[in-house]
Amino acid sequence: MPAAMNLMALPDLPLVKPGDDLPALLLQSINRMPVVLENGDILVLAQKIVSKAEGRLVNLDEIEPGEQALALAEETEKDPRLLEVILGESTDVIRTRPGLIIVEHHLGFICANAGVDHSNVEGPSSGDWVLMLPENPDASAARIRKALEDARGIHIAVLIIDSHGRAWRNGTVGVAIGMSGFPAVLDLRGHPDLFGDILRATVVGAADEVAAAASILMGQADEGRPAILIKGWPYKLGEGSLQDLLRPEEKDLFR
Amino acid sequence: MPAAMNLMALPDLPLVKPGDDLPALLLQSINRMPVVLENGDILVLAQKIVSKAEGRLVNLDEIEPGEQALALAEETEKDPRLLEVILGESTDVIRTRPGLIIVEHHLGFICANAGVDHSNVEGPSSGDWVLMLPENPDASAARIRKALEDARGIHIAVLIIDSHGRAWRNGTVGVAIGMSGFPAVLDLRGHPDLFGDILRATVVGAADEVAAAASILMGQADEGRPAILIKGWPYKLGEGSLQDLLRPEEKDLFR
Repeated sequence: MPAAMNLMALPDLPLVKPGDDLPALLLQSINRMPVVLENGDILVLAQKIVSKAEGRLVNLDEIEPGEQALALAEETEKDPRLLEVILGESTDVIRTRPGLIIVEHHLGFICANAGVDHSNVEGPSSGDWVLMLPENPDASAARIRKALEDARGIHIAVLIIDSHGRAWRNGTVGVAIGMSGFPAVLDLRGHPDLFGDILRATVVGAADEVAAAASILMGQADEGRPAILIKGWPYKLGEGSLQDLLRPEEKDLFR
Repeated sequence: MPAAMNLMALPDLPLVKPGDDLPALLLQSINRMPVVLENGDILVLAQKIVSKAEGRLVNLDEIEPGEQALALAEETEKDPRLLEVILGESTDVIRTRPGLIIVEHHLGFICANAGVDHSNVEGPSSGDWVLMLPENPDASAARIRKALEDARGIHIAVLIIDSHGRAWRNGTVGVAIGMSGFPAVLDLRGHPDLFGDILRATVVGAADEVAAAASILMGQADEGRPAILIKGWPYKLGEGSLQDLLRPEEKDLFR
């Protein structure tokens, strides 16, 4: 197991626009780095550049809020058109209070605003644009991974991440919302510890730990480092999916 | 803002025993690294080595479970003596089910087993030993930080971390339970984004993102890399505490 791990931001990525060839932009940036893309590397992407390239933009000026969105606008003091978009992305409303709506996204995770983002969104025409998450982030990650692997003849992992709030603790942290070539969780149950005891329940949220690590270097909107290359992740890459990270509702004690 | 961050495990740390001079052990290990300790570095420590050095061991053979522990043993199918220790570390029992007890630790965070750990614990004499968390992890971090800073004449940050399960998502992730010289959260509210919008609620759980990143390299019990040095964290160090990371109960929607 290597004793060091290195994270590097991809330099000089342009602002991504709908229809852009994101893998090509990533490769151009990687070409300007002092390192090369190698077998076992992990490329971590902020969801917003994937969503933008996929054109996941909605103009709020063209949204007609329905009854549920109007009722939620009273409870949350949010724009009913935005709530209509959020509801369209969600399977369930988990909690609301003024200024806050927490939903189950149709992809299965629980987060604020269904990941719909108002900041840093410039639409293709005038209007009040918001950005939804990629429609299928695992598939997006697989597509980007294949393009990079085909271009370079190597095997890598691609993670797509967002920043989520948590129960109980202040502050958002990076979490994985899609991946390809990466084991979402590492199941270390049953490995003996140093004194021979059996570790009973050590399932590590590996993809979320990597997401949090990459999120540190991404910084926030006004910094704009939406792609991070990681070398030296100390485990073997393998297949995994967002689904592996999601606790089924019947096993979740905190809904 | 630097574009790279580097994490390195401290090499060849011996197994820590009660009463050990942990800062001295850390400095000896750092002396064997190919890098030096510099201003702005972050040292991340697994709670278990801090707890062990502080002698936070309890022999279950000497514990007499009370009424509440015996009742919880029925619900959780756990050792009533272990439950007695867990209750002694807790202010509230949040959820139970067979095999699981989630409490509010008296330090204020919510976690399984009050952080009391049965694995990798070798007591000072024969018996069935468990390890509790450091009594005051912020103070422990401050003590270790001061010893290292005094020895080297530099300013660094020290974080003490543990692995916690989460609501909604599978797998544990590293989280901070104590710190010194590190801003627990970064409040980026009010910074304009690239298009001049105001970011309304971007408080980042910085210490938890760093904890998750370090946790990747620590691996699990049978690997044993309990101390990680981080260089290139892209923000200014400053003071913070565990308390900054904890959402007050009245603002928490998920208890």
